[in-house]
Amino acid sequence: MSPDAPIGVFDSGVGGLTVLKALVTQLPRERFVYLGDTARLPYGTKSPQTVVRYALQAAEALADYGLKCLVLACNTASAVGLAAVSERIRDVPVIGVIEPGAEAACLASRSGHIAVIATEGTVRGGAYQDAIVRRRSDARVSAVPAQLFVALAEEGLCRGPIAESVARHYLEPLFNARAGGSRPDTLVLGCTHFPMLAEVIRAAAGPDVSIVDSAETTARYVRQTLESRNFAARHGEGSLRLLATDAADRFARIGGRFLERPIRPHEVELVDL
Amino acid sequence: MSPDAPIGVFDSGVGGLTVLKALVTQLPRERFVYLGDTARLPYGTKSPQTVVRYALQAAEALADYGLKCLVLACNTASAVGLAAVSERIRDVPVIGVIEPGAEAACLASRSGHIAVIATEGTVRGGAYQDAIVRRRSDARVSAVPAQLFVALAEEGLCRGPIAESVARHYLEPLFNARAGGSRPDTLVLGCTHFPMLAEVIRAAAGPDVSIVDSAETTARYVRQTLESRNFAARHGEGSLRLLATDAADRFARIGGRFLERPIRPHEVELVDL
Repeated sequence: MSPDAPIGVFDSGVGGLTVLKALVTQLPRERFVYLGDTARLPYGTKSPQTVVRYALQAAEALADYGLKCLVLACNTASAVGLAAVSERIRDVPVIGVIEPGAEAACLASRSGHIAVIATEGTVRGGAYQDAIVRRRSDARVSAVPAQLFVALAEEGLCRGPIAESVARHYLEPLFNARAGGSRPDTLVLGCTHFPMLAEVIRAAAGPDVSIVDSAETTARYVRQTLESRNFAARHGEGSLRLLATDAADRFARIGGRFLERPIRPHEVELVDL
Repeated sequence: MSPDAPIGVFDSGVGGLTVLKALVTQLPRERFVYLGDTARLPYGTKSPQTVVRYALQAAEALADYGLKCLVLACNTASAVGLAAVSERIRDVPVIGVIEPGAEAACLASRSGHIAVIATEGTVRGGAYQDAIVRRRSDARVSAVPAQLFVALAEEGLCRGPIAESVARHYLEPLFNARAGGSRPDTLVLGCTHFPMLAEVIRAAAGPDVSIVDSAETTARYVRQTLESRNFAARHGEGSLRLLATDAADRFARIGGRFLERPIRPHEVELVDL
């Protein structure tokens, strides 16, 4: 294992590019290989067995690049596949997005009442709820699916009246506590698409709510992990390799917004898993 | 072939239930078997070869019920798979949603300027554009992807300020012709989810625009096809059998809104393709 080895980042599609962007900001000298399984998305509606099988295939494809660290930048894959992937790719640290997000939420919350917004599948699976309560048994978790945010992020409608009214639609019932009810003081963005909408989400939740962006917290956790092992790149200029299993054009077009830099379609290599 | 045989209806998920609802209204005496390939949706982002393979598998599974007619209630499957499925299921009429919608639009339009809203995949594939121009060479087609409508329909947000502002977002640029520009006089709802939002779409397009609902037009075309062959059921009370390849709970919950009657999860039979 060398500090010059690349970091692998895996997601079912473009959402994980928000995690990649945070990683590039935190670790600008690193080489990254990102794989989006665009041919088989979405993972959230598939059975856990299928998601584990897909995650293992993706992890093995990325492991061929000689990784020093693998990030599962996909909530569904993190929730159901982290253990299986860690078992398979034994010699490198495998990091999911859920544990860092849960950790940050438990640190940020004073009252212990934590709200989580995520996709329907992530909420139903209960991984954030479990990870939070495991760390803080006094926690109360209000988890709400906010599926439309995914479509808004992919359409590039992250600001303006539509995004604002969708944010109010999901967040007002969560944060407008009725008389006597408790109001969460922390909100976890439990889907990799949601950091795209952080601004309207923040406005709808209110200024006194701590927002935990799991892309940010995961990137910080990856940096700490590498630094603690003396595995962080010291001299590199950083680079980025983008792989997808289908639809390179769409990946480039939508992914560019997520990564906040243009992606040219020919930059995206098609791979089979 | 007997008039008492059932009609098969196939879609990648719940969207085709709007077509099924229109069919049940037009043909209340018929027995229907609906198959939603919920395990492998969405089809719109998959390669044509894959969609054809899936559509053939679904068609064969439905053919085992001894059909008298098969409806491809899925725009993507209709666009790329109709010929292959007709070839495979030779002894029964196979009807897609695109040709009836294109036919109705050509009849409804005076000016020949026809707008189509659909998913990204359907617009890119150009099947409506081709089917319209094949019937009416003077036609001018403005096709626009309106992806958010899918998420709104599945979330049950078909009315109210969010749905209204999304409808304006997509339709105002289409129907607010600049000085000298021509304005479509007909709008095709080219996605099976969109009839759910017909009210807000109509309001945003304006009262002088003819709306072609491809669920309605397909159901009418199926009735005509059966009647012209003397294949319509005469004495039955009608029945409905619902099959899905995954997630019966979600199918029941969301599908109930599309079908406009509650679906109990145990009514949905899981099948493997």
